[in-house]
Amino acid sequence: MKDYKASIHTWLKENRESAIQFLQQLIQEQSTQGNEETVQSIVAEKLKQMGMEVEWWELNGEELKKSPYFYSSREEFQGSPNVVGVWRGSGGGRTIVLNGHVDIVPAGDLTQWNISPFKGEIMDGKMYGRGTTDMKGGNLSLYLAVEAIKASGIELKGDVILHSVVEEESGGAGTLAAVMKGFKADAAIIPEPTNMKIFPKQQGSKWFRIHVKGRSAHGGMRYLGVSAIEKSSVVVEHIKVLENLRNDRIDDPLYANIPIPVPINIGRIEGGDWPSSVADAVIMEGRIGISPEETMEDGQKELEDWLAKLADIDPWFKENPVTLEWYGARWLPGSIDNDHPLMDILSEKYKSVIGTQPVIEASPWGTDGGLLSQVGNTPSIIFGPGTSNMAHFPNEYIEIDKIFEVAEILALTVMEWCCIQESSY
Amino acid sequence: MKDYKASIHTWLKENRESAIQFLQQLIQEQSTQGNEETVQSIVAEKLKQMGMEVEWWELNGEELKKSPYFYSSREEFQGSPNVVGVWRGSGGGRTIVLNGHVDIVPAGDLTQWNISPFKGEIMDGKMYGRGTTDMKGGNLSLYLAVEAIKASGIELKGDVILHSVVEEESGGAGTLAAVMKGFKADAAIIPEPTNMKIFPKQQGSKWFRIHVKGRSAHGGMRYLGVSAIEKSSVVVEHIKVLENLRNDRIDDPLYANIPIPVPINIGRIEGGDWPSSVADAVIMEGRIGISPEETMEDGQKELEDWLAKLADIDPWFKENPVTLEWYGARWLPGSIDNDHPLMDILSEKYKSVIGTQPVIEASPWGTDGGLLSQVGNTPSIIFGPGTSNMAHFPNEYIEIDKIFEVAEILALTVMEWCCIQESSY
Repeated sequence: MKDYKASIHTWLKENRESAIQFLQQLIQEQSTQGNEETVQSIVAEKLKQMGMEVEWWELNGEELKKSPYFYSSREEFQGSPNVVGVWRGSGGGRTIVLNGHVDIVPAGDLTQWNISPFKGEIMDGKMYGRGTTDMKGGNLSLYLAVEAIKASGIELKGDVILHSVVEEESGGAGTLAAVMKGFKADAAIIPEPTNMKIFPKQQGSKWFRIHVKGRSAHGGMRYLGVSAIEKSSVVVEHIKVLENLRNDRIDDPLYANIPIPVPINIGRIEGGDWPSSVADAVIMEGRIGISPEETMEDGQKELEDWLAKLADIDPWFKENPVTLEWYGARWLPGSIDNDHPLMDILSEKYKSVIGTQPVIEASPWGTDGGLLSQVGNTPSIIFGPGTSNMAHFPNEYIEIDKIFEVAEILALTVMEWCCIQESSY
Repeated sequence: MKDYKASIHTWLKENRESAIQFLQQLIQEQSTQGNEETVQSIVAEKLKQMGMEVEWWELNGEELKKSPYFYSSREEFQGSPNVVGVWRGSGGGRTIVLNGHVDIVPAGDLTQWNISPFKGEIMDGKMYGRGTTDMKGGNLSLYLAVEAIKASGIELKGDVILHSVVEEESGGAGTLAAVMKGFKADAAIIPEPTNMKIFPKQQGSKWFRIHVKGRSAHGGMRYLGVSAIEKSSVVVEHIKVLENLRNDRIDDPLYANIPIPVPINIGRIEGGDWPSSVADAVIMEGRIGISPEETMEDGQKELEDWLAKLADIDPWFKENPVTLEWYGARWLPGSIDNDHPLMDILSEKYKSVIGTQPVIEASPWGTDGGLLSQVGNTPSIIFGPGTSNMAHFPNEYIEIDKIFEVAEILALTVMEWCCIQESSY
């Protein structure tokens, strides 16, 4: 293995400048939802040059809607193709999916950017721009890993299937489409921004809306009414008790350093319509974290049942129960066994490249790994060079060195997982 | 006095049908803000027919703005005239203002009305329509009271000044304009809907907006943020403590049966912008009740000082103080001494007409009586035939009998207050 390692390392070093320019090219494509076609054609061309079989297709809303796991803000996907590159192995090896999304969130308020979001400018070893960390930088690690192996003349026994998907930011329809087309494998790695931590588990999540009722009255006689604003505080406190119960249950040491492994967050509130009236209705919107140890359905049911118990703590809710609505996006939780062989290989390669033990944690957010695991039966690990606290924020950047470190770790991991065809080297 | 009483009673009985038709005519005028000209011309014609000197003028925004008590959503008042009728006494008597507003609030959602809001239809002794109870029915009591006295051939020593004003629903600019023009008196009666209770005190009120800060974070790591929604509950509870303190201070027996004499109501809340983010800002809008025993300024200052104390109960507010904004409308508190001679006269006449003792209470809402008392130095009593729980609601109505009962009580009250010129009867 030693020689392979040196060969990979050298290739990455020699191709560093062209790789950075390629990333700049990707950042210059403003591939927000519905605008992914150009960046996908660049990726497809790259995968072809690398000698992969490339499949290119536009998502089919009609087909996708047949899956209960489909979620998107749209049903038409013109201009939003998926690209998958396949490098077939000689047979007898384990297969792997390497999955990355090319869609980006909008740049947002440009006045908050100190640097152009769509140039890929470099300062102090960092490349700046929307999508550098989430996750075109991580995608570059994937391309480099495969290219480095191929450039070293190595043949693998197992297939390498590289997903370049759309729609991750909007519910995962791209990865769902790839899975539905059969692009699955024995395991997967997704280089979402983990700051080079290894995430074998990913929290799922679901959005909800709670309608709290009150009774209107003139503010000068507020004692004749019932304030939905005050009642909404009762609901918030009640939900915090459930959050405690749900998190007390989690004993996986992966979560040891996380204060609240699967939070329930109330992110929006709105209610009442007049300063001098008692508010008769409040709407709260939130997100429940779904543990990798439970199903989406179980988590949802638990919140539903819990809200019904409000009547026990405040008789108001007996006559005026809150109503719970599930809406918007949904991210499935994902999980791979802590002692899965791919976890061992990835950890070992991390140590051999970086020199220290990797940090292994659980992810506080969902990724397409939930769909790969649960729908595609492809257990997934999240491990990438970006940092999640830059994702979706102004002045997003990625540390360039980490892209190459991750590429090297992934190349060695893929080689061991998929198994080298001895005759090839 | 006995003969006068019989004469007034008989006149009201004989003129009942035409009075009801006149009220229907007033209800048919949709005199919402900016649309009061036609109804005022009907009133002005009525006052002229009754032999009053009539003054008619459009409000002057430039003049009004010179007063610190001016509040309106507009500064131009084309099409919104004030009307004042004056019946000069022979001299030596106490003067009285009889004040009523002709502006109405909009009918609102018409689907919630079971009957037309602008016809003045009568069913089971009630006239239905927007403005019946608030307060064209009460205004009719005023016209009838004066007309009945005049029709009985009585002359008074003191002046009777009848205000038919605009803008009560929008901050009181109509009454302010009348006061600024010198239409003041020794006391006033306003037949706002009190359900024939006598209100010697009226709660003032002021609107406020509180900005509560949080710190944003991804909902999946909500422990890294500070929820402005949770902090707003702390603010609501803190304000309730102040409300207790302010109400514990009130020992006037008038408030004995009122659970919260001067409430602080939080009527609106809005905050956060994403279900899966920790809310970093919440805005709450509310109304503070101002006791007749305090000034508007003292009440406002007390809330300001109280909110500064949030830092003592939660260190978050030390670094992130809430901000308090005063905005929108403002109603001055009003008050007349419980043993003011007009209170005695009105109570006695109530008993002589109705046969029972009147209920004397404090009003939970402000009226133009605050401006009359504080700016016009004209202590005011609120006493009228409508019911406040119908005001501003769909299917607003007034009990017709009560209009005539109030008219009779007011006629007798005015005669005694202003003093009959003996030679006239």
